[in-house]
Amino acid sequence: MNLKTYQNMTRDELLKEKEALEEQYKKVKEKKLNLNMSRGKPSSEQLDLSMPMMDFLNGKSDMLDSEGNDCRNYGILDGLKECKDLMASLVHTSPENVIIYGNASLSIMYDTVARSVTHGVNGSTPWCKLDKVKFLCPAPGYDRHFAITEYFGIEMITIPMREDGPDMDLVEQYVNNDPAVKGIWCVPKYSNPQGYVYSDKVVKRFAALKPAAEDFRIFWDNAYCVHHLYAEDQPEIPEILSECEKAGNPDMVYEFFSTSKITFSGAGIAALASSKRNLDFIKKQLTVQTISYDKINQFRHVKFLKDAEGVHAHMKKHAAILRPKFQAVLEILEQELGGLGIGSWISPKGGYFISFEALDGCAKAIVAKAKEAGVILTGAGATYPYGRDPKDSNIRIAPSYPPMDELVEAAKLFTLCVKLVSVDKFLAE
Amino acid sequence: MNLKTYQNMTRDELLKEKEALEEQYKKVKEKKLNLNMSRGKPSSEQLDLSMPMMDFLNGKSDMLDSEGNDCRNYGILDGLKECKDLMASLVHTSPENVIIYGNASLSIMYDTVARSVTHGVNGSTPWCKLDKVKFLCPAPGYDRHFAITEYFGIEMITIPMREDGPDMDLVEQYVNNDPAVKGIWCVPKYSNPQGYVYSDKVVKRFAALKPAAEDFRIFWDNAYCVHHLYAEDQPEIPEILSECEKAGNPDMVYEFFSTSKITFSGAGIAALASSKRNLDFIKKQLTVQTISYDKINQFRHVKFLKDAEGVHAHMKKHAAILRPKFQAVLEILEQELGGLGIGSWISPKGGYFISFEALDGCAKAIVAKAKEAGVILTGAGATYPYGRDPKDSNIRIAPSYPPMDELVEAAKLFTLCVKLVSVDKFLAE
Repeated sequence: MNLKTYQNMTRDELLKEKEALEEQYKKVKEKKLNLNMSRGKPSSEQLDLSMPMMDFLNGKSDMLDSEGNDCRNYGILDGLKECKDLMASLVHTSPENVIIYGNASLSIMYDTVARSVTHGVNGSTPWCKLDKVKFLCPAPGYDRHFAITEYFGIEMITIPMREDGPDMDLVEQYVNNDPAVKGIWCVPKYSNPQGYVYSDKVVKRFAALKPAAEDFRIFWDNAYCVHHLYAEDQPEIPEILSECEKAGNPDMVYEFFSTSKITFSGAGIAALASSKRNLDFIKKQLTVQTISYDKINQFRHVKFLKDAEGVHAHMKKHAAILRPKFQAVLEILEQELGGLGIGSWISPKGGYFISFEALDGCAKAIVAKAKEAGVILTGAGATYPYGRDPKDSNIRIAPSYPPMDELVEAAKLFTLCVKLVSVDKFLAE
Repeated sequence: MNLKTYQNMTRDELLKEKEALEEQYKKVKEKKLNLNMSRGKPSSEQLDLSMPMMDFLNGKSDMLDSEGNDCRNYGILDGLKECKDLMASLVHTSPENVIIYGNASLSIMYDTVARSVTHGVNGSTPWCKLDKVKFLCPAPGYDRHFAITEYFGIEMITIPMREDGPDMDLVEQYVNNDPAVKGIWCVPKYSNPQGYVYSDKVVKRFAALKPAAEDFRIFWDNAYCVHHLYAEDQPEIPEILSECEKAGNPDMVYEFFSTSKITFSGAGIAALASSKRNLDFIKKQLTVQTISYDKINQFRHVKFLKDAEGVHAHMKKHAAILRPKFQAVLEILEQELGGLGIGSWISPKGGYFISFEALDGCAKAIVAKAKEAGVILTGAGATYPYGRDPKDSNIRIAPSYPPMDELVEAAKLFTLCVKLVSVDKFLAE
């Protein structure tokens, strides 16, 4: 292992290193790999964990819920009672604060923004009638959040992410002073992609915001609320709805979550948690948009997962599959790049990603180089608003989907690309 | 049976009739009925027909579709290939013209209007930036259509319904001359509530419209495309996409349909059919709104229904349950009201409703009277834009949901209320 950092190498040493790396790269290319580390998709093995759910309802099942409603028919706009109980328990709120939707929390977020654009927030001026609407976007962040705000022409303001959450000085400065700032995207636990967990202090500062805009809302995407990697280290964050209420901001948050990475990614249950006043306004729209969501799937989920305890037991099985994959990638990163000074990364305690910081100006080139050799990574820049990473340094690694052998191969190729591009950078300086 | 029309009765005869009717009404009220003929919901017996579908996937099933995609995971935004094949066959179009959505075609309609409001149609000015947007609403029509347009502040213009479809002279006059007219709601086969079937001529006149607005679209809700009541009499209408294409208007129609009244009303499959150009624009939005819809449910549906033939065989079983209910109501109407000159109705060949025309100014009073005696009907006026029936005469009867004995009781009570309110009307004249 070369312990000399690239920065300290002479030009000749760099050229020699480059030659060796290119030889390795050539050999990998000859393997004609076709690997994908781009999206936070569960593996087949993980999906298999929920196959028993498919046996909980069959052709002979009684399809009446605990209140006697026929799950097969129209009705029950906001979800089965028992499903609200289950979902509420995952984010430590009350079932009255929950609406159960269809299979995707992303759709709830989209709809929530769309409704605000056309109808405002609880009676405020529709955003489409305003000259300017802005959202704060802690970054690196989730590309699909940014895609929603961009689609609706909302100006995105990048907020730097810290280990304990977004830069709250900046958040307060914007939210408390600029009435055009209407929202902020948050993934509070196991942030996407860094896996950071918001500190209690950060959560409480969120709850205590004094928004200049009455229709400012926190878009709290609690996607990984129960998605821990280690049994012995499961951070919890303060419950955001009650924190906001305590701070005198009862209506300030929309919380989104789902079972997409608990049961089936394509066929789970998604939910929204918010204040009664917010939900009342939303239901007025929802009743125009649909008659009801798929209650059979809600019913099936409740029968399988049962309660929060059932979910936590189930999530341990996911962790048992995911943990070795995260560890394998982290080991390869350490082994291949440790001490070279050409990149840094974070070892997350949960979630679906490892965030890699390359040298400035190297991310795009690394992703391109990996692609050339048959390994697809999340597009460089995707973790920033408008797909523009100002330093061109962040790369999101998603270890969950590939089988272990492919993952190891892909991770090794990745580190090779990091080295190659970094050598080039130093040679060009 | 009294064959003398109320109109020809003397005041004394009317008073006597009223007394007798009120005696009957009092007796019915004592039964404390709790019956519902308000919504087009399938009965439990109908839902039972699809219970075998629940056995087509279980914990041991292979969850890969015909193209090798894992139905449990993210992806396949526009639906499984085999599901597109199935759904396309129901409306006689090609699978390339189809997107499979979630469980409700109503949501697709809502989304289609919402997207036009915020982003226009294939690049046109977003409707929210226009001073005035109008929709034509053939009426009597479907209240949930009108609710969508009303929610988005779209001005609704009532178009009278004829036996062969909407008044096309009026439709052409509006669409071809007024650029603010952006859409029309249509239920072309078994119109809601009258059960009318658009004639070939009407469909072709639709296809041949020359809209003043480039972003005018026909919202073709083909909800009852395969929902016939009689095996020997199953009207077909020309396929609207190809008709529009032939007439030089390839992008003029959005067609909506679902399996809500084929399998499970709350947990079926909904689809949109349109031109490639329209679908391309829509997919750009859809990719922001969701990752994919529930493909497990799509998969289950395909395994159960198989193909158009499978669907038609299945629909015969629905008809066998529905037909006697429609016939029972129609018989009671004839028996109790035939020849009295106080109402008229249509015997539909399919769909979910019987449309009743009371004497002018009587619908609200009849619905209120029925409610007082424990029978819920669709709110009077609901079949017209803004809930305002100008003549206060149309009542939608939904015979599908109640068991036969309750249905008979409800229908009898309904006719009693019609008589009571009509007598009052004549007495007041």
